[in-house]
Amino acid sequence: MQNIVDFVLELDKLKQVTRKTRVLNSDRYENSAEHSWQIALLASSLAPYAVEAVDMDRVVAMLLVHDIGEIETGDTIVYAESGWEERKAQELACVTRIFGMLPAEQGQRLLALWNEFEAAETAEARFAHAADRAMPVLLNLANNGQSWRENGIRHQQVVDRIGPPVRHGCPALWDYLESRLAMAKEKGWLA
Amino acid sequence: MQNIVDFVLELDKLKQVTRKTRVLNSDRYENSAEHSWQIALLASSLAPYAVEAVDMDRVVAMLLVHDIGEIETGDTIVYAESGWEERKAQELACVTRIFGMLPAEQGQRLLALWNEFEAAETAEARFAHAADRAMPVLLNLANNGQSWRENGIRHQQVVDRIGPPVRHGCPALWDYLESRLAMAKEKGWLA
Repeated sequence: MQNIVDFVLELDKLKQVTRKTRVLNSDRYENSAEHSWQIALLASSLAPYAVEAVDMDRVVAMLLVHDIGEIETGDTIVYAESGWEERKAQELACVTRIFGMLPAEQGQRLLALWNEFEAAETAEARFAHAADRAMPVLLNLANNGQSWRENGIRHQQVVDRIGPPVRHGCPALWDYLESRLAMAKEKGWLA
Repeated sequence: MQNIVDFVLELDKLKQVTRKTRVLNSDRYENSAEHSWQIALLASSLAPYAVEAVDMDRVVAMLLVHDIGEIETGDTIVYAESGWEERKAQELACVTRIFGMLPAEQGQRLLALWNEFEAAETAEARFAHAADRAMPVLLNLANNGQSWRENGIRHQQVVDRIGPPVRHGCPALWDYLESRLAMAKEKGWLA
């Protein structure tokens, strides 16, 4: 039991990993723990828009663990242009350590979910990526483009970086975002 | 699609519902969104300690939605002695409104999960309650009894209020907590 307790207390650190998007109607930057909760519910709500068979319980399980590696690396804005491979290696080392705190069978289950998300090859992982990438866009669209403006993000960067994973995982969601992003550009929320 | 987007943006408000427990090594009070994420992972990690067959995916799904009613009522410390029925009625009205933003089938699925948790009659709901009730105790044990001390909580209150649901849902977890709580009392973290 103590190893499970140690594990869940280690997870507490994800509440202190801040992202670039602020909580709506708040000055506080959201953290990766509450973000993980929100996208799990976004993904399961999007179930009717899946275009291939998806085990939604596995999507949710993946989303709950996918950011845990940030406990050691911190969050990196998706528009960063370099350093991804090194960060992913650091995140893998981090989750290997943290999931390794659990009894072997459960630790391996969580590590498999984390790796499945990273590989983005299964239908579940693609769907999970769509929810993960879409969420900060949805918050920005509701927030006058807050994190785009704070970080000087261009419309084309969003289209290039968010478009493919969202379109591959949930085409209807990209159709929705594409038109909203055009509006955001007109409003000057995106450079 | 817009109704799902409106739903997930409404959920953002749970990030602003603060609880009585602080994030470890931080002055910030945790919120109910990140708490929901943490207990979903606590519950799934505790799977080997389930004493009856439990569909862990449903436990996780329940834990992700169980606090959403607090968007309108706020969080109430578990040791409050009155007002529970009225608050639960308010929470039910709140989740009925929020889950009603989704297409009928999905909204009903989430409402059923919320009601199942509240009724605490299925093995899954009992297991979910054990994780939910145990988590602030685990944080307090790691935090010199922070929320107990701030709220003048007595050892007997914890035993009376946390003991039964944790014992019913996950007896091994209560065995663990019981001995740790005795130690917490000796240290003066509980009145």
